[in-house]
Amino acid sequence: MAHRVSNFRKHYSDRQSNLRVLVDMDGVLCDFELYLLESYKQKYPNEPCIELQDREGFWVKDQYEKLKEGLGANCVNVHNCKGFFKNLPEIPGSIEAVKELSQMENVDVFLCTSPLNYYKYCMQEKYAWVEKHLGKNWLEKIIITKDKTVVNGHVLIDDKPNITGAMLQPSWEHIVFTSCHNTGTNLHGKRRLDNWTDGTWRDLIEEFKKRVG
Amino acid sequence: MAHRVSNFRKHYSDRQSNLRVLVDMDGVLCDFELYLLESYKQKYPNEPCIELQDREGFWVKDQYEKLKEGLGANCVNVHNCKGFFKNLPEIPGSIEAVKELSQMENVDVFLCTSPLNYYKYCMQEKYAWVEKHLGKNWLEKIIITKDKTVVNGHVLIDDKPNITGAMLQPSWEHIVFTSCHNTGTNLHGKRRLDNWTDGTWRDLIEEFKKRVG
Repeated sequence: MAHRVSNFRKHYSDRQSNLRVLVDMDGVLCDFELYLLESYKQKYPNEPCIELQDREGFWVKDQYEKLKEGLGANCVNVHNCKGFFKNLPEIPGSIEAVKELSQMENVDVFLCTSPLNYYKYCMQEKYAWVEKHLGKNWLEKIIITKDKTVVNGHVLIDDKPNITGAMLQPSWEHIVFTSCHNTGTNLHGKRRLDNWTDGTWRDLIEEFKKRVG
Repeated sequence: MAHRVSNFRKHYSDRQSNLRVLVDMDGVLCDFELYLLESYKQKYPNEPCIELQDREGFWVKDQYEKLKEGLGANCVNVHNCKGFFKNLPEIPGSIEAVKELSQMENVDVFLCTSPLNYYKYCMQEKYAWVEKHLGKNWLEKIIITKDKTVVNGHVLIDDKPNITGAMLQPSWEHIVFTSCHNTGTNLHGKRRLDNWTDGTWRDLIEEFKKRVG
């Protein structure tokens, strides 16, 4: 369950436009972990793998490398392949939820995603994914950046537990989207959103709308 | 000449990190207009073209279309081609200037660029351009977004005269980089940076550093 939203920790005085909700892609909209595991098993059927319930830590390649030397590079080979990002399945309910979110009054949604270091395929495939699942109009909502602290939103929904960058105090509150790799992670007070299906995301957004309004 | 920087119109109270300078790519770092004209002449030698001194208005395809029906589509064909963005020449002095800028104390530089609607080649080629001209470390400074108003910087150096988006009052001051298409444009009080070669960019940055500090 996502924590209930009761404490209004901050009131935004900069109301000049809408509530800006930044939504990460991998691990929040697209099921990177599931598809990586499936593709890995297919590509390396004779190597050990890490089932989702055993995943720990944000960087999948680091956990594989600890399991056995060389397996980290196998992971990288899997996600660097042509077609990997294009074919990611959706996190259950994510598409419907962000479509609904974008139609809420006084809300602007942006898809805020980091590219791989190996950039040959991932960016245009992320665009193709968004076009296919959300439609052409959504392409203008994509922001590709390694540093999310400099994106000016009120909320960032992201499965990476620690997000740092040039701004020490970003404008957003980070809501940690629950993923297999972060279930045991100490979030140091950050709140979670556990899924897109039980409706708690609506409560969260309504709370933020009150703060901004 | 760039206007002299004397009026400190705004003092930033959010000093928590460095001065964040957002630098556009096309028209500021990369010579989109020159290369488009050259490539156009090569691809359509028997069609009329618009020399740089006659360019007016931000969207090159619109001016070509006005010149003769169908020429707008030709322009699009030119810049949508594989290799176009990768092969853009640098705006004189831009590479040296942003390298120097990034090494200034208390300054963070980000390259803030919009993708084409036709996204098949442009993003990875922009990355390849940055890697080639500025080095691998600069890849993490790239921000790709259609809406630059939501990027949280203090200064945006961009040749597009009117930049709008979800935020009505972006955090940055827009400094208009002079380009063939905007020399006659009314900037409604916005200041210009004319080039990277006469050193005025340093005065501009020093002024902003004082405001932020």
